[in-house]
Parts: sequence; C-alpha cells; structure tokens
Amino acid sequence: MSIFNTRSRGGSRNGRSDISRSRIKKETDMPAQSIGNTLIDIFVEAGIKRIYGVPGDYNLRFLELLESDGRIEFIGTCNELNACYAADGDARISGFAVVTVTYGVGDLGLLSAIAGAYAENVPVLVLSGAPPEYASRSGALLHHTLADGNYTNVLKAFEQFTSAQSTLTAQNAGTELLRLIKVAWTMKLPVYAQLPSDIVDAPSERNTPTPNYCFPSSDKTILSNVINFFVHRLERAHSPVILIDALADRYGVVSDILRIIEKWSLPYAVMPTAKGTCPEDSSLYLGVYFGQKSRNGLFELIGQSDLVIGIGVRFVDSTSAWFSQRIRADAWVNIEATQVVSFKQSFENVEITELVSTWLKWDTDRHPRSTNSSQSVSIKPQVNIVWGQHYFWSQIEAFIEPHDIIIADNGTSLAGVNALKLPEGCSIVSQPIWGAIGYTCPALLGTLLAAPHRRQLLFIGDGAFQLTGQEISTMLRRGAAPIIFLINNRGYTIERMILGPNAHFNDIAAWSYEDLLHGFGGKECGKFIKVGDISGLQKVLQNPSNGDRLLLIEVSFDPLDGPPGLSEFGKMARDYDYPTSYGMSSVKS
Amino acid sequence: MSIFNTRSRGGSRNGRSDISRSRIKKETDMPAQSIGNTLIDIFVEAGIKRIYGVPGDYNLRFLELLESDGRIEFIGTCNELNACYAADGDARISGFAVVTVTYGVGDLGLLSAIAGAYAENVPVLVLSGAPPEYASRSGALLHHTLADGNYTNVLKAFEQFTSAQSTLTAQNAGTELLRLIKVAWTMKLPVYAQLPSDIVDAPSERNTPTPNYCFPSSDKTILSNVINFFVHRLERAHSPVILIDALADRYGVVSDILRIIEKWSLPYAVMPTAKGTCPEDSSLYLGVYFGQKSRNGLFELIGQSDLVIGIGVRFVDSTSAWFSQRIRADAWVNIEATQVVSFKQSFENVEITELVSTWLKWDTDRHPRSTNSSQSVSIKPQVNIVWGQHYFWSQIEAFIEPHDIIIADNGTSLAGVNALKLPEGCSIVSQPIWGAIGYTCPALLGTLLAAPHRRQLLFIGDGAFQLTGQEISTMLRRGAAPIIFLINNRGYTIERMILGPNAHFNDIAAWSYEDLLHGFGGKECGKFIKVGDISGLQKVLQNPSNGDRLLLIEVSFDPLDGPPGLSEFGKMARDYDYPTSYGMSSVKS
Ligand SMILES: Cc1ncc(C[n+]2csc(CCOP(=O)(O)OP(=O)(O)O)c2C)c(N)n1
Ligand SMILES: Cc1ncc(C[n+]2csc(CCOP(=O)(O)OP(=O)(O)O)c2C)c(N)n1
Repeated sequence: MSIFNTRSRGGSRNGRSDISRSRIKKETDMPAQSIGNTLIDIFVEAGIKRIYGVPGDYNLRFLELLESDGRIEFIGTCNELNACYAADGDARISGFAVVTVTYGVGDLGLLSAIAGAYAENVPVLVLSGAPPEYASRSGALLHHTLADGNYTNVLKAFEQFTSAQSTLTAQNAGTELLRLIKVAWTMKLPVYAQLPSDIVDAPSERNTPTPNYCFPSSDKTILSNVINFFVHRLERAHSPVILIDALADRYGVVSDILRIIEKWSLPYAVMPTAKGTCPEDSSLYLGVYFGQKSRNGLFELIGQSDLVIGIGVRFVDSTSAWFSQRIRADAWVNIEATQVVSFKQSFENVEITELVSTWLKWDTDRHPRSTNSSQSVSIKPQVNIVWGQHYFWSQIEAFIEPHDIIIADNGTSLAGVNALKLPEGCSIVSQPIWGAIGYTCPALLGTLLAAPHRRQLLFIGDGAFQLTGQEISTMLRRGAAPIIFLINNRGYTIERMILGPNAHFNDIAAWSYEDLLHGFGGKECGKFIKVGDISGLQKVLQNPSNGDRLLLIEVSFDPLDGPPGLSEFGKMARDYDYPTSYGMSSVKS
Repeated sequence: MSIFNTRSRGGSRNGRSDISRSRIKKETDMPAQSIGNTLIDIFVEAGIKRIYGVPGDYNLRFLELLESDGRIEFIGTCNELNACYAADGDARISGFAVVTVTYGVGDLGLLSAIAGAYAENVPVLVLSGAPPEYASRSGALLHHTLADGNYTNVLKAFEQFTSAQSTLTAQNAGTELLRLIKVAWTMKLPVYAQLPSDIVDAPSERNTPTPNYCFPSSDKTILSNVINFFVHRLERAHSPVILIDALADRYGVVSDILRIIEKWSLPYAVMPTAKGTCPEDSSLYLGVYFGQKSRNGLFELIGQSDLVIGIGVRFVDSTSAWFSQRIRADAWVNIEATQVVSFKQSFENVEITELVSTWLKWDTDRHPRSTNSSQSVSIKPQVNIVWGQHYFWSQIEAFIEPHDIIIADNGTSLAGVNALKLPEGCSIVSQPIWGAIGYTCPALLGTLLAAPHRRQLLFIGDGAFQLTGQEISTMLRRGAAPIIFLINNRGYTIERMILGPNAHFNDIAAWSYEDLLHGFGGKECGKFIKVGDISGLQKVLQNPSNGDRLLLIEVSFDPLDGPPGLSEFGKMARDYDYPTSYGMSSVKS
C-alpha cells in the first residue's frame, strides 16, 4: 500500500480551489472548543463556503452553531434529495461539497442522490444529525427510526453507496471527519457521517491532526516505468488517439492532458460522460466516442488505431451505445485513478494526478510531433427549417457562449446537448450514468452558487421537472439568474422511444409553467416565455435577458419528436433490456 | 413456529376488502402465460385495483402489460417518493398497496417512504423493474447502477427497511410474489421485489400455489389460556383501562375490541398514533394518552389503574411525551401481533385477530358489567377569540364531519389535529413515528383513490408542502376534490419550538400558493382561498365548496404561533436531544 504524501493539488480549469489550505492556528493552551465548532473549523479549512440541507430535530444545534459562526452559509432547500443534488452540482464545479440533514427521514431521502454521486465520481459529504448517543446506545424507541431499537440500518444502507462512513463520537469526531474528507477528496466519491445530537456541544478532542488532503503518492520507480512505457508506445504508434472520460475532469488533470496532447499533436476524442471537459475547436478534436453510434467515422478511426490511451475511461451501456465500442485489445491503455491498465502490462500504485504532471514535466523539452490526422471537420447534418427538436438544437448551438455552464437532464435534453459543438471553456453538468431524472434542477442551484459569474443554461424535460422543480424557488429566493429551457413534449419522450410510444403511462400532468414560476417566486419572480415555433425561438434567443433575473423558457414539441439519434438509442435500450419480448411488444416505431 | 391456516380475514371498519379472494381459475392445459401476466393476476386476486409508480427503462414492459390487461390502473405520480407515500396512504385505508418503479434511481428514491411504512406498520409492496438477469449475472456496467458490477447493493439497502425481499426469477416469480404479499399482509410491513426486465415475457412457472393470505393460526390451548387470563384479570380488576394503538387498526380488530369494551363497560384511551381509530363520543372514551402531557387527569387515571390492557401499544418518544408514561408494572398487559406480554406471564403464538375474535365470541353470552368510571367529559380549554392557531383549531373541530378522512402532516398540523374531538367514523392518516414531513400530500392522493366517497381534509404546513406539494397536480388531473388547509407560518414552526426560534435556517422561501395551484392544475384547476383572520375563516368554513373540485385554503399565522402544547413539546424534544447543550443554546422561548 502507498503512504500518503504531503503533495497537494493545484486548481483545475474549473477554478477548483485547493482544499489543503494551511490550518487555522489553534492555541494549544486555549480551552477546548465544542465538537460542533471543531467540525465547522474543519469544513472551513477544507474550503467549504456553503452547506446544503434541511433542518431537523437532530441537526438543529449544529445548524445553530453554523449560523452563529457565520463563515459557512447554510443553503436550505425544499427537500433532502434536492439538497444532495445541489451539493453534487456544486461539487462538480468546486471540487467538494457538504450536505446536512436529519437522521432517517432526512438521510434516507437523499440516498438515491448519493448513489448518483458515487456512480459519477462526485465527492459529497453527508453530515446526518443523529439521535443522541445515550439513546441509541440504550436502543430507545425514537421517532425517525423504525422504533424497534435498531440503530445500524441507516448506516448499513449508506455503506452500500458511499466510500467511507462513520458515526462520530466525542472522542474521534474531528479525526474521523478529516478521514472522511480525505477519502472523498482522493477517491472522488461520497462519504457519510452521523453526528449524534448530544455530542455537538461536548468538548472536542485535543490535537485533531493537521489535515492532509492529498493524493496517495505513486511508487517512483513504477511512475518512471509508466512514463517510459507511454513515450515508447507513442513514439512507435502510427495512429495514436487519446480518449478522455469524466474522471480526468474530477481529478483536475484535463488541462495537463491537453498540454501533452498538444506537445505530441495527438488526436483526441471524449466519452459522452466527458463532453464539455475539452475544447472542441481544436484541429486535434475528433468528437464524442459513442461506440458504433459515433459520428463522422470516429468509430472506425478508433477501431483501427494502434494506440488508444484512455484517461479514466469506463464503458457503460448508455454511454457506449450498449457496449458497441471496438478497440484493438493490444492498442488499449487506460489510466485509472491509481493504476494504468493495458493489454499486456498493468502498473499499480500510480496516482493519476502525479502521473499526468510528471509526464508533462518530462515532455516539456520535447519537440512537437507532427500531426498525424485530423478528422475534426464536423460535417453538420442538414438542418430542417421546420419547427422541431432538430431545428431547436441547431439554434441552441449558436446560442451557447464560451464558458457557459450547461446543465442537461436525462431525456431528450441530454441527447440534444451531447450533440452540440461547444465553444471554448464550456462545462456540462449532467448525470449520464446514474441517470436519475430530476437531478438537474437542484444541481443548477449548486452550480449557480459555485460559479456565480458564469452564465448557466439548464435544459430539462417536463417529466424530469415534475420530480424536483420546486428548487427553482430557492434560486429565485437568492436572485440567481440562470436561463432554463423547459422541453415540454407532454410526457416521457425518451421512454416512448424505448417502449409505449402512445401508452398512457408515458403521459404526465399538464402544468402551467408560467403560473408555477410565479408560484415559486412569490414576489421576486423571474421571467417566463413560451415558445412553440421558429419565430418565437428566434426572438427569445436574440434577446434572451440581461442576466438580472431567472428566465424560464418553455419550448413545446410533439411527444414523439427528439434530437437526432434518439429513436436509435431507444431501440438499443429496448433490445438490451427486453431481448426476447421486444418482438412481442406493441412498439412500432 | 406456527403453521399457516386457511382462515381468512374479513373487512375492517375502514371497509378493507379481504385480499384472500378465490383464485381466478386457470385451465391447466392452457399454454403457459408470461410472468408479467401472472404477476398481474396475483395482484388482481389480492384485491389490488391501482398500482402507483413512475415508469423507467426496466419496468416499461410490465407497465405495458398492465395497461393492456386493463384490470389494474396505473397511477403515475410526479416522482418515486410520492408514489410510495401515495401507496402508503392507500394501504392505510384499503389494507394493502403496490408501487412500481425502476431500479436504482427509482427504488432508492422511495426508500425513506418504505422505511416510514415499516415504522408505521403499513403493508406496501415495491415492485422494482430491475436490469436484465443476463446482464446483472455478468456484472455488466449499466446505467442506474454504480457501474461497478455490483448488483446486490440496492437489495441490501432494502433488507434494512422491509420485512421480506426477493429477486424474482423465471422459475419462482409467482411463488415469490405470493410469499411477499403474504408477509406484508400478515405482518403489516412493507416488502420488496425486483423483477428483471428480461423475464417479464418469459413463460410463467406452472402450478403457482393458490394464494393463502391468512394469519398464522394460534396455538389453541394457549389461546384459551389467554382468554381465561383476560377474563380472570378483568373480573378482579377495580379500575381496568384499555389502551389502543395503531396496530389494532392495521389488523382490523378495532371494531371487535370496541364490542368487547362495551360488553365489559371498559373505559378506553388511545395512543396518539391511534387517534381517529375509535369513537370519541362514547361515555367510555377517556381521550388520548400522551404520558405526562395527557389531558384531564388521564395520566393519573392510567397510572393508578390495576389493569391496563394495551392493544398493540408501542411507546415512542414523540408519542409518549418522551417516555413519560407511568403504568404499574403489575397492571400492564399488551396484546401484540403474535403474542401477549404481561408483567409475570407472556403468551406466544397467539395471533391478534384470532385472539380478539375468539374473545368476542366467548363474551357474547355474558352480561354487561356496570360502568366503573367515566372521565370522558372533556374540559374544553377556553378559546381565545383572537386570530391564531388556538382559534383556528377550535373552529376546525366544529367543521369536521362524521366519516371524514383527516390527513395531517407533522408540525403544527398534526399537533392541532391530535387535540381535536372527532365525530363518529373519522379516520386520521399521519406519520407520527417515522415523522417525515411532506408525507401527507402524496398520501392524500392514495386515500382519495382508496375512499373516493369520503370527504377528505388535509392539514399541511408550508414547510412540509415544499417537499412534495407537486402531487396536487395528480389530484387535479384526476378531478379529486379534497379540502387542503395549508398552514403558512413562514417556515418550520415546530422546529422553532425546539431550537432557533428566529434562526434563518428555519425560514423558507415564500411561495404564492394561488399561482402554484394554477400551475399544477393547468386548465382543470381547483379553487383557492386565502385566510388570515376570523371573518375570513368563518366565511370559508360556512361555505367551503360543493365537493366538486379541489379546494386549497391558505391559512396564515405568525411563525411562533402554535396549537396548545406545542412549545412544551418543543422543550421536551430539546431536552431529550440536547441534554447538555440546551443550557448553552441561544434559545430563549
Ligand atoms: C428518478 C428517475 N425515475 C425514472 C426514470 C426513468 N426515466 C428516464 S428518462 C424518463 C423520461 C424523461 O422525460 P422528460 O424529462 O420529459 O424528458 P423528454 O425525454 O420527454 O424530453 C424517465 C421517466 C429515471 N431515469 N429516473
Ligand atoms: C423529510 C423530513 N425532513 C426534515 C424533517 C424535520 N422537520 C420536522 S417538522 C419540520 C418543520 C415542518 O414545518 P411546517 O411543515 O411548515 O409545519 P409547521 O410546524 O411550521 O406548521 C421539519 C423541518 C422531517 N421531519 N422530515
């Protein structure tokens, strides 16, 4: 096993701050402060500026301390699921986020969101205010429990979906919190802590260790072997390609990877999950690799390459067109968080951030290699000049500005966004792997708070909006000014593409979004525009808003209209999920 | 262990139907039908008329079969948590309910609601459409999973909060579903099933056993011993009291218990959790037993009684004024689901429904015993004729009609409802033990569908409404016509009573509920009335609505105004949860 070194992380292109700030000095002869205040100190030192959540009996005192301390703002949300989605959105931009709720009713309410953070490598810490220690120890029958004396069930549920868990005690609270943050930070995964209500004001343990949020250091010999391996392979490769996935963004190595790419003039593609992490206007950019459904010959190009270097690549059904990727086994090398895996050789104990920075340093003296290929001229599909999703997305492409944050919910929204050519510096926030609809509206709250100076565009379906749409009210309450495109196609279009195109179960209630916006906004309400044709869209896109208040644009489409490729996607899902029954089903699409 | 007999359950006072209907005959020589259709048959035979849920990739084919079968209606809700709350509300009235969602994103989204059903003894079955068997067997990296090949984590989470779980297979699907329903039905607890997408159309196993949803039969000797024990104790007791809890309602024994009570002229009280299950206008009715905080001398009366027979009683912090109940140890006997527990003696293998019906039969020849006491004259607290919660609840008391279903969310709403004197035949639906706010709005959808001919009144706080309020749209879509009192006191009043009376974290966003109603209703919207003073309330209560459409009444109060007793309740919670810090806290209430 590696030991942990003292090397700390610099910022990434997203402007992530280094969480390993110097510890606020504590006078060792001062009276012990309370555990609650120690935890707050630790959060402050970890760079936390906001904590999302919902109050409840068991976290009230912690919230009270937080409010009187004043350094961290509490962002109350409408419910716990939304709080965790917001924290997830925040962490994707800022690098790490915290949510606090009450035990049982609160933490179980966000378990699905935490599982999503796990699936998508987002470091979020859940601080659950738990029943008092003395009561759980005695098996007291308390509300917010099953009232059967069982105090391990919630923890066991979280064990399934977080990378570390802890029930804090008066003896270890500070140490344990530091451990959890370190796990979250180094593994890019969520963690879970229970804070019993009765220890919040207990005196803190002395000598909380100095935080040391840095990555496990690599074995130096292996590290130089790996770099030699890469250089050797690259020098011999005829058609090398770099394939970048989301993990590269989570570890903040994208900008260094891009510099290596430039030095070597390497063509690069991104997985759908990494769309938005890399510049798309470079002549080296090949596009999004979506297995057999990639555009412009990328499937063939990658299939023929004699060296495909993956950066944290993971092939998931929905991001690989159902495992249709084809890469020569002897060509494949993947850099993972703490190892490099290839056909013949694997290297363990090489940490991704150290590997990339060392490689870049090594490269610095080299001369650029001549460009081997450039397939990046994107052949624009002919745009129909009739109203519909094809037209809509072609116009949105022109509307996107550099450095926009684009949040896209699952459904036709994400499918549309994934096919856009993005200008420089944009980020995409979405949940393609876990794929919970409703994720994005609360996540937008988090991205707005994490990057208040960037323009933010949300694309969300009417179906997804019904799950968590009330979080708009929290944005309005704070005066945030995103632009929200609500895709109203009267139901679950993407599901219609899979099964039941005309089934009732894919219909949803018709809402009046203008009234809703006024409802959620109370007096400080945003602006609403309804669009259902070409001229309407033109008008709003030419003069959207002056960025001073939230703009909700409802865009209407037919229920069976989708962006290019969606019905193929639906068919793939149907064939995979229902291999035998699909022939019998009533779908004729 | 007991074996299971063939005795089946009759209906309860709530009009619960017997789920053990005769099985629809199947021709043994017919070609095997699909598993999906077999499951539907089983649900139909179990009396299921509606299934709540949200579609997703892995349950689409089941939904398609359900829709084409036509005997069971699919009730799509805005999200999965709401679907399960609705099923819970339905099951509390109808006796059993089913919810179907998709794996991971769907089922984890309702885990908190299922834990609530467990804590409160509500039989709900979750049918989770799961990834195809062949894919999970091979550890495929699929969306809606952590994409790490782990297919046991969701099941493990549900093991913590359901009484039985199963991953259905082509070999056992029907048998397993029957087993799960039986567990849910006999134990009054939730159960969980995963239905892999690729077996839905597989041929069903032959010879699915005939369903047999009946209770374990009691040991006959023990049974007669228990009855002798009760009769013997009752004949000797000077001041016997019956104390009824929610379990009596779940097992449908309340009406039989009331007949026993009448035969013996026994004074009876209810736990707060059983409020609404028993008539309150009887001269034998003593009121709600809330430990030391009971009204009208009930605490003393029960404390002095030499025989207190509990029917399924469980003392939970929030329903016992923090364990302040005082009952003489030698006076205490509690009838639980499958046993009777007393100071000296316990009897196992006695099933509550059989015990009660046998006892009642035994009693039939006896002469009534003379009434021993009647403390039931309720001393009405003097009502302030100033606007506020005291006044409001006094008026609501007069407004309630016989057989109303009253749904009350945690917060000042439930506190207010619990203090009302109810006319005959009312039911209360609330979640006092699990205590998740936001439970009631979706639960109301379920009670509306389960009992469409009863008037239904919801009392919900503005805080609770923000969690799940969108489910109003599903009511409007179906033309349901409940009366909803939305208690707007600008935040979390009940939490203010515990800690942070003026803290920001107890504030919430101000919504415009009239606009929201229009937003959720689209064109078929309900009626909105805003009330903030005595005359306004009088007007609306005198002429509320003609029951043809949903009525939303927003009632405004000051943030620190609560029904009688609430601030005491808050202090008890504070003292219990924060035994040492309370002195240091900034609360001055
Ligand atoms: C929490 C959750 N529930 C259910 C699903 C299944 N699901 C995936 S996409 C989808 C429909 C999305 O509809 P909408 O947001 O309107 O987008 P559209 O495709 O219609 O544009 C559903 C129900 C899911 N992914 N997550
Ligand atoms: C899901 C969930 N989250 C948080 C809590 C903690 N909690 C209990 S009552 C309450 C406030 C309820 O406020 P409101 O509904 O407005 O009722 P009020 O007491 O103000 O009338 C909160 C936040 C809870 N019980 N359940």
